[in-house]
Amino acid sequence: MCIVKQPHPLPNPPLEGEGTLLNNAVETKTLSRVRIVLVHTTHPGNIGAAARAMWTMGLSQLVLVSPSRFPAPEAEAMASGADEVLERARVVATLPEALTGCVWTAGFSARPREFAGRVLAARQAVEEAARQLATEALPPKDIALVFGTEMSGLSNAELAQCTVAATIPANPHYSSLNLAAAVQVAAYELRVALGAGAVWQAPRFAGATHEEIERLYAHTEKTLVACGFLNPERPRRLLPRLRRLFARAGLEQEEVNILRGILAEMDTLLEAAAQERKSVKGE
Amino acid sequence: MCIVKQPHPLPNPPLEGEGTLLNNAVETKTLSRVRIVLVHTTHPGNIGAAARAMWTMGLSQLVLVSPSRFPAPEAEAMASGADEVLERARVVATLPEALTGCVWTAGFSARPREFAGRVLAARQAVEEAARQLATEALPPKDIALVFGTEMSGLSNAELAQCTVAATIPANPHYSSLNLAAAVQVAAYELRVALGAGAVWQAPRFAGATHEEIERLYAHTEKTLVACGFLNPERPRRLLPRLRRLFARAGLEQEEVNILRGILAEMDTLLEAAAQERKSVKGE
Repeated sequence: MCIVKQPHPLPNPPLEGEGTLLNNAVETKTLSRVRIVLVHTTHPGNIGAAARAMWTMGLSQLVLVSPSRFPAPEAEAMASGADEVLERARVVATLPEALTGCVWTAGFSARPREFAGRVLAARQAVEEAARQLATEALPPKDIALVFGTEMSGLSNAELAQCTVAATIPANPHYSSLNLAAAVQVAAYELRVALGAGAVWQAPRFAGATHEEIERLYAHTEKTLVACGFLNPERPRRLLPRLRRLFARAGLEQEEVNILRGILAEMDTLLEAAAQERKSVKGE
Repeated sequence: MCIVKQPHPLPNPPLEGEGTLLNNAVETKTLSRVRIVLVHTTHPGNIGAAARAMWTMGLSQLVLVSPSRFPAPEAEAMASGADEVLERARVVATLPEALTGCVWTAGFSARPREFAGRVLAARQAVEEAARQLATEALPPKDIALVFGTEMSGLSNAELAQCTVAATIPANPHYSSLNLAAAVQVAAYELRVALGAGAVWQAPRFAGATHEEIERLYAHTEKTLVACGFLNPERPRRLLPRLRRLFARAGLEQEEVNILRGILAEMDTLLEAAAQERKSVKGE
């Protein structure tokens, strides 16, 4: 009942980065060994939203166990840019079919079950998943994260087929995450567990040298004394305070230039005021 | 422009737990000091979905900066059980109004910015948020997690108003999380960072005692020898293998009883077969 059969993973378009976009160390072939299995999904919109959630984290292998309606326009609308994940989704009739070939599976459940085996928080579950993915089995085996139907989640019999039960910490009074939101959290945790938690960083500009910074403080002291804000007889902790502030920030060369420009502006004003006083006296 | 002003946090209904639902140590008053700020949200459905995402993690304080349309039926539909969060949402005209009184704020951005200050991965950002919330300031101050408009996120000017820029690790080729999905990940991370990552556990039944387990292995050995599966002359590593398997699982009393019941069944079959052979010989 496979709709489309194409080799995973999805090809990645070339990166057009603005700023510094840290690429990450996770190989696409590792992510392609992760199945997201949605069992008896009622609303096709949730399938599309789950596909989008998956693809934001680099997951591309979606398996649907007898969804109410699929393909469906609502699914495509919610998938946004992740329509290829939808197009490659496999539809199967039963959970055993969906899990065939998997060496490790986690069934997600918000609802406590009396008869579950190992129950792990989402973070611990995906860390175990990441260790499985790192195991050098040949040929490499898939793992699966399994999510039940919207209203009631996985049945006890479905959950019993999974290696572990996984659960997302939540408000005990309202633990009902939207299906795609649960997929988002699980996929996000997996990406981080796989060491792909790198994020963009703003570029750092040239740092100021020690002597540039010391000249700044010397200038600051001179100007603040000149204008009377700093009393050399009772300096209190004014300069140490300023040093502490700028040390925390880590000064860049350009920033030192700006601050010294402001001090120079004050010097000019002080000079002008002194001239003014002189000429008033001279009159 | 406040629609409804009511004291936070939302009252929690009494817990009717099935199974063991671990209650968590986060005080509701801590969670009530976290604002989720949505700036210029275009689709009211996303506001509702964000409210649901918040409330699943116990957050209740939603602030909307000039949303396109609110209140709106789509918001209510998507909020599911979190409609109280929507009802208590504050609508303000500008970001500064939304952030007034906050001592720490994180602006979320998937898009790299050349001119950002500190940029932290979501996990590190919310760990900093959790430390802020733990600071004993009197009166306690709010913190805020800020999310921009759907199409383009926060503007540079908006992001510059935040203490840190936060970013969710994502597929560098498709980092466009749905707004509510981003709120879900951030709120989830915050809940875990606040030490509320406890999850439900299935009950453990009475463990088997040492002597019960040893009797099981003795019985196993006797029966497997009797049926010929275990050759005492060449035992290989059969019993150590079984010991290893059951040690990993950790045997419960009831499980030992089941296994010994199966062994007893085998004993009966062996006995019957022996009787059969005897009677055949006797004939």
